Amino acid sequence: MSLELIKGLRATRVFSDVPVGREQVRAVLEVARWAGSARNRQPWRFVVVRDQGLLRELSVLGAYAGHLAGASVVVLLAVDGTVSADDAEFDAGRAAQNLMLAAHALGLGSCPASFFPAVNVRAATELAGLREPWRVRTGISLGYPAPPLQGSPAIPQGRLPLSDLVIEPPQRDG
Amino acid sequence: MSLELIKGLRATRVFSDVPVGREQVRAVLEVARWAGSARNRQPWRFVVVRDQGLLRELSVLGAYAGHLAGASVVVLLAVDGTVSADDAEFDAGRAAQNLMLAAHALGLGSCPASFFPAVNVRAATELAGLREPWRVRTGISLGYPAPPLQGSPAIPQGRLPLSDLVIEPPQRDG
Repeated sequence: MSLELIKGLRATRVFSDVPVGREQVRAVLEVARWAGSARNRQPWRFVVVRDQGLLRELSVLGAYAGHLAGASVVVLLAVDGTVSADDAEFDAGRAAQNLMLAAHALGLGSCPASFFPAVNVRAATELAGLREPWRVRTGISLGYPAPPLQGSPAIPQGRLPLSDLVIEPPQRDG
Repeated sequence: MSLELIKGLRATRVFSDVPVGREQVRAVLEVARWAGSARNRQPWRFVVVRDQGLLRELSVLGAYAGHLAGASVVVLLAVDGTVSADDAEFDAGRAAQNLMLAAHALGLGSCPASFFPAVNVRAATELAGLREPWRVRTGISLGYPAPPLQGSPAIPQGRLPLSDLVIEPPQRDG
C-alpha cells in the first residue's frame, strides 16, 4: 500500500557488502530529478561517489556522517548557491526524499548526512569536484541494509504524535 | 508501480469544488510526520486552514501563492527557527514531499507555495496564530484537481535530463 511504503521509510546507517548496481542508482536518480522545486528551477546536481577513500574523507565532515564510509554508493547533493538558501534547501529536501523513497521501493537502505560547519561544506564541495555557486551540504548513503546491531541508536527514534504537531489556526469572526 | 507513483507527482494549482475530507487530511499528515529529519528533531508543526478568508489573505503573501485561495484545504508548514535554517528547510522539504506524495496516492492534487519576502513570512506566521521561534514559509494546497485549463503554464514544465544533472566526482589516483 503506497501510504505504508512512504510512511515506512527509515534511515539505514549500516550496510552489507552487497553492492548497489548502476541501474539501481540510475533508477533512484530518475525519480529524484522529477521532484518539484520552486519555479521548477531544479537547483540540484548529483555527484555519484563509490570510491572508498573519498567516502572516508567525506564521512568525517559532519558529526553524524560516519555512515557514508560504509555505504556502497553515496549521492552527494549539490545545491545552487545563486538560489535563495531557503528555497534551495527545501527543494533539495524534496529531491532527497524522492531519492530515498525510490531506494526504499527497490529494497535499498539509505540515510542522509549533513556536512557541517561551513568549512566542511566547502571541503565536501571541493571533494566533489565542484565550486561556487554549487554547494554540497548533504550526502545520501545507499546500500543493502545489514542485520540490525545490538544496543540503542544514538538518535531517538519514533515520532511526535499528530496531536503534538497539528495546530488550529485562529478562529475568524463572521 | 511505486517508482512511477513517486515520479509522477506534479503540482496541481487549480482545484474543483469537491472538498477534501478530514480523514484524508489526517492520512496525509500521518505520512508527513514520519518523514526523517536531522537528529530526528521533527522541526515542524502543521496548521490546517480551511477558512476561505484566511486562505485569500495567505494567497497574496508570495508571487506564486495564488493557488492557496482556491484550495479545499491548506497545510501551513511551520518550521522551528531555533534549528539551523538549512536543516529546518531541508527537513521541511522532506516532510512536504511525504505529504504531497501521500495526497497523490489518495487521488488528491497538491502544490506548495512559498511566502516571500521576510515581511510576508512574518505575516503568514501571524495569520497561522504562531510566533517566533516558529516560522511559516510554506503552505501546501490540497484539493481534487480541476480539469486542465487552456494555455501555457507560467512556470516551464518538464525536467532537466539526468545527463545534465549527474556529475562525475574527480578521479582518484592509486
